[in-house]
Amino acid sequence: MLVMMKSGYTDRDAKRVIDKVESAGGLAQRRKLQGQNLLVLTGCPRSLERELNRLPGVDSVRVPTGGHWLVTRQWRPQDTVVEVAGAKIGGANPPIIMAGPCAVESRDQLLRIAEKVSDAGASLMRGGAFKPRSSPYSFQGMQEEGLALLAEARERFGIAVVSELRDVNTLDLFLDYEIDVIQVGARNMQNFEILRCVGRAGRPVLLKRGPANTIEEWLNAAEYILLEGNSQVMLCERGIVAPRGAETRYLFDIAAIPIVREHSHLPVIADPSHAAGDRRWVPAMAQSAVAAGANGLLVEVHDAAEEALCDGPQSLSPESLEQLLADLKRRGYLDSPVEHHVSSILQLVGNNC
Amino acid sequence: MLVMMKSGYTDRDAKRVIDKVESAGGLAQRRKLQGQNLLVLTGCPRSLERELNRLPGVDSVRVPTGGHWLVTRQWRPQDTVVEVAGAKIGGANPPIIMAGPCAVESRDQLLRIAEKVSDAGASLMRGGAFKPRSSPYSFQGMQEEGLALLAEARERFGIAVVSELRDVNTLDLFLDYEIDVIQVGARNMQNFEILRCVGRAGRPVLLKRGPANTIEEWLNAAEYILLEGNSQVMLCERGIVAPRGAETRYLFDIAAIPIVREHSHLPVIADPSHAAGDRRWVPAMAQSAVAAGANGLLVEVHDAAEEALCDGPQSLSPESLEQLLADLKRRGYLDSPVEHHVSSILQLVGNNC
Amino acid sequence: MLVMMKSGYTDRDAKRVIDKVESAGGLAQRRKLQGQNLLVLTGCPRSLERELNRLPGVDSVRVPTGGHWLVTRQWRPQDTVVEVAGAKIGGANPPIIMAGPCAVESRDQLLRIAEKVSDAGASLMRGGAFKPRSSPYSFQGMQEEGLALLAEARERFGIAVVSELRDVNTLDLFLDYEIDVIQVGARNMQNFEILRCVGRAGRPVLLKRGPANTIEEWLNAAEYILLEGNSQVMLCERGIVAPRGAETRYLFDIAAIPIVREHSHLPVIADPSHAAGDRRWVPAMAQSAVAAGANGLLVEVHDAAEEALCDGPQSLSPESLEQLLADLKRRGYLDSPVEHHVSSILQLVGNNC
Amino acid sequence: MLVMMKSGYTDRDAKRVIDKVESAGGLAQRRKLQGQNLLVLTGCPRSLERELNRLPGVDSVRVPTGGHWLVTRQWRPQDTVVEVAGAKIGGANPPIIMAGPCAVESRDQLLRIAEKVSDAGASLMRGGAFKPRSSPYSFQGMQEEGLALLAEARERFGIAVVSELRDVNTLDLFLDYEIDVIQVGARNMQNFEILRCVGRAGRPVLLKRGPANTIEEWLNAAEYILLEGNSQVMLCERGIVAPRGAETRYLFDIAAIPIVREHSHLPVIADPSHAAGDRRWVPAMAQSAVAAGANGLLVEVHDAAEEALCDGPQSLSPESLEQLLADLKRRGYLDSPVEHHVSSILQLVGNNC
Repeated sequence: MLVMMKSGYTDRDAKRVIDKVESAGGLAQRRKLQGQNLLVLTGCPRSLERELNRLPGVDSVRVPTGGHWLVTRQWRPQDTVVEVAGAKIGGANPPIIMAGPCAVESRDQLLRIAEKVSDAGASLMRGGAFKPRSSPYSFQGMQEEGLALLAEARERFGIAVVSELRDVNTLDLFLDYEIDVIQVGARNMQNFEILRCVGRAGRPVLLKRGPANTIEEWLNAAEYILLEGNSQVMLCERGIVAPRGAETRYLFDIAAIPIVREHSHLPVIADPSHAAGDRRWVPAMAQSAVAAGANGLLVEVHDAAEEALCDGPQSLSPESLEQLLADLKRRGYLDSPVEHHVSSILQLVGNNC
Repeated sequence: MLVMMKSGYTDRDAKRVIDKVESAGGLAQRRKLQGQNLLVLTGCPRSLERELNRLPGVDSVRVPTGGHWLVTRQWRPQDTVVEVAGAKIGGANPPIIMAGPCAVESRDQLLRIAEKVSDAGASLMRGGAFKPRSSPYSFQGMQEEGLALLAEARERFGIAVVSELRDVNTLDLFLDYEIDVIQVGARNMQNFEILRCVGRAGRPVLLKRGPANTIEEWLNAAEYILLEGNSQVMLCERGIVAPRGAETRYLFDIAAIPIVREHSHLPVIADPSHAAGDRRWVPAMAQSAVAAGANGLLVEVHDAAEEALCDGPQSLSPESLEQLLADLKRRGYLDSPVEHHVSSILQLVGNNC
Repeated sequence: MLVMMKSGYTDRDAKRVIDKVESAGGLAQRRKLQGQNLLVLTGCPRSLERELNRLPGVDSVRVPTGGHWLVTRQWRPQDTVVEVAGAKIGGANPPIIMAGPCAVESRDQLLRIAEKVSDAGASLMRGGAFKPRSSPYSFQGMQEEGLALLAEARERFGIAVVSELRDVNTLDLFLDYEIDVIQVGARNMQNFEILRCVGRAGRPVLLKRGPANTIEEWLNAAEYILLEGNSQVMLCERGIVAPRGAETRYLFDIAAIPIVREHSHLPVIADPSHAAGDRRWVPAMAQSAVAAGANGLLVEVHDAAEEALCDGPQSLSPESLEQLLADLKRRGYLDSPVEHHVSSILQLVGNNC
Repeated sequence: MLVMMKSGYTDRDAKRVIDKVESAGGLAQRRKLQGQNLLVLTGCPRSLERELNRLPGVDSVRVPTGGHWLVTRQWRPQDTVVEVAGAKIGGANPPIIMAGPCAVESRDQLLRIAEKVSDAGASLMRGGAFKPRSSPYSFQGMQEEGLALLAEARERFGIAVVSELRDVNTLDLFLDYEIDVIQVGARNMQNFEILRCVGRAGRPVLLKRGPANTIEEWLNAAEYILLEGNSQVMLCERGIVAPRGAETRYLFDIAAIPIVREHSHLPVIADPSHAAGDRRWVPAMAQSAVAAGANGLLVEVHDAAEEALCDGPQSLSPESLEQLLADLKRRGYLDSPVEHHVSSILQLVGNNC
């Protein structure tokens, strides 16, 4: 259950709710999310709802259905807008473009590409410093040096940066270098330690969907982050397990975009590069994602893909990125609000709030 | 191998090629496709290529790679355009809209919906007369009566019709009622008897991809049809096996659209309705398919979906279809050529022809 | 609904039921299965149950749950035993061994292998005469000649034969050559024309599971056959769609064996060869299938696998087959009844009959 | 490359190799695994092989194919045997039984079940103390108290214990309570921080396969552990992503058992409980795993499954466990060596060592 507190509620009001919940054997966690004070209750009987509703300072009590609460429109019917270095992501804002190399490989490489993706129109640059690799013998990233280079690129070209957090014990480095968006990778979608950790960090998070995970599990993973008090979360679709003989590395679940936008108030970003595994299909897939209602794109771009230490075959050239953005612009996608047909059910929920 | 004959070649020229192939232990099948006379050779050594090239009447000999030949751009670099009752499908033509109920249920239902989808802007109407159903106890379709109603609707509203051929022995009925496009359903994608049969019928074919099938197998299935002398084939993506816990009935393989268009000259149609299994996701998926380069849409539409005998939950209302087409129009998709970035490799192939 | 008639019931009794059903808008199909006379009712209200129960000649009325009726233990709690040329398949009988080449390739090849698999202990020999192939350019089988050779092999070595029916119009040939078991291939699992056709033929059927199909759909496919009056059906698990990067051609769904045996009275056969796609894994998979309760094995065997026209890499040598059977014998699997722990729920159903 | 050192090699010998590798731009990691001293080289040219071979103290140089080296039989052709509290797991030893509840729920529950699974014949007891849960609102385990109870159960019933490590920062607790086997869960298979951490801990590890992961990726994950100097690793198959409509929670990849045993020297354990998700299928699946060559079983057992806080529906009763072990015993599986037909290729490799 969620207990929404009135704006002028007091600590004593909160204490009263907590006592009531604890005496019923439950647990109440106090959180502030998007300016709203609330208590998240677990382990207490539904029958408590009526009683809690009558307590002073309580605005309303919600009994969400399903396993995730804070990520759904049951808690927040209107879209959440994530702000990153002035850019607004989500809601009716036009889709945001994040582009850059899979991995930071050298100062020269990163600054060169930073300039190009910035010129092409990207608002954020991606670049992995700590690379999770299937084999221990593959390039593991430039580590701290990579973060420093990202910070330098941001300084020089005024482009915000996103990078993946692989281990909780490097989080401080991400904060020190002021990495704008912390990415939780697909392999870590259910690394609950990382989820809690980025929840507490309070920075914008890009949460990739795991290739074996349902949309339900993905939303639950985001719930871990919100429950720690951080609702600056973007959900990133990057493809799920493909069948044998597939020509793409993963199956890009295009339907996930409208589905998540229907259930959740969080923005949805699409990563066609990892799904495709082959740059030839990326422009068409990127356009399809935007047409389906994605709030942004995360695209791998390299200006010397054949020499890339990681994911070269799926990286667009800066020229192809420019062409892609021109195509999107011509269709009017980059200037106009992202569309989303809110269903009648959700409008109903919205009216109740 | 494919032996392309010159325009003025004689029967004797052909005979000479055939003799040469047969004496080398191979088989030569003589076909005319899109105005081009060719011989499809199987079971003969590659070393024959040079010798055949020198024979009179022979224009060129192609040695395609991969298991399918006629469906790829190795045979025909330029896009094939399928003509259905005046409508042109494929190539640079704007995407075509096919819409209608899953099944023909009654005269009243069909004529009512025919008028509505026609008014909304669909060029073809779909409607199943012989329904393949998982359970023998489900509604199996109105059979011949259904075909007659489709013919009546076409007559009345000037809309071409597409219907599924379930059994080879009903093909004559499809020809008698002049069904414009014969659909081969997903379950029958590798029903080779049906493939050969629609190949010989010479009518436009809509070949759905089987949910367990790779793109390679799908193209091979089309190859069966072309090898019988019919290249009026449209390939229809309708989703493949989804993982447990998926919120859609199938996984819509959006990447299949650019991939097939790259490899094959045949038009690609997208069916978001069967992939979604839920009308809420259909508009977003339909738009994504067009943005990815689909040459057309096949959408289930019913004006009383809750009473539909089949696939009600995934059917759009006629109003939603209108809205979808308005959205596509606003983006300029319905007036302009379907985009397709032909890769450099293919341009090379094109130059050789 | 199923109306079970008493043993001495009259035509008039049946007529009375049929009239009652039809006047309620339903359809009654009269069938005799395993010595039991029954009427299968569709399209009539459940409320009819009580009334029907009181009619003369009626033994009992069953209202099955789920979409399939005749294949489940709701109709027949005890195991069905299929008899093929004296061999008993299903129930508590030891597992049966079916082995042989993917395709009949020549008289010499077939007779050679027939002798070897027969000596090794196989009760049936497999051999495809009409091969369904993904590519039209692959070997399509020896057709009728292949069936003739199978008949000759049976004559000579006293081994029953199983072969796949690809097209309904060749069924008569299968009957003429007295092919003991008619196989419906994985690609044809939902080819309803073939299902009805083998249902009417009355011969033992081996129904392979389609790689995209659920157990529910597989049982429904069998229901089509039983509904035509043929309950001599064996269900064959041969693997379902595998994920990208899998080392086997398909994923062998070992759990399907106990699941089908729990729900259905029909015998389950396992085909580890197609699932594996690599002979190295076949012996372990075959043993696992028998340990899981399979009523038989279908194994590809070739004595010159490197020259096989089809599926060579997954074919065991006759020596490996012998070793496999020796291993199974040592564990006591070939001499003792196939185990199946009937659940308490099913015992209850059994008691009611 | 792997450089195997002679038994009497000196530090100077190692230093010479390291210098040579570093001067060629590579990295050499010195490890001792199963009594063998070796240097794992990365980033150096193959051409170095000959030179290194001639250095003093060097026994042989191996150039493995594929991305993983230490886990394959290319390094160690003979089976690795993991020893846990006197029990030997792997190689020709009979399969080991690990059983117990999904989660430690209370002292009473754990001690009760410990006694029962110990009496039934299990050598290890499983029990989760830190539970990774999809939803933050689900029971997260008894944490440290759970480990303490496992230690108490081990003390009292002389049964070794296995428990899952969810976060690296709790590893010390696992060591303090002397948890015999540290489990890396399916969700953490590619949590490289955990892999390195259990590699350094030197305790026996049970590495579950991730549901989206190929066998290749699974072996690579194990490689991370071995590379840290710990080869006491057991690989646990527990099912991979199942298709929509599946009746099991995951698809049990039975073929993975012979495949991994062919490629790797590490023991393979099978967990039919998580794959099934339903206790009805567990006994058949467990028997199939042993028949396929599994070196052990991990089975969920609860004596009051309907009250279990986690995974109740898939837990066997202690009586069913007893029955399962009796069935395995009757077939001779529990007294005799696990079978594994080493292929001729591997025998060749073996001869070279």
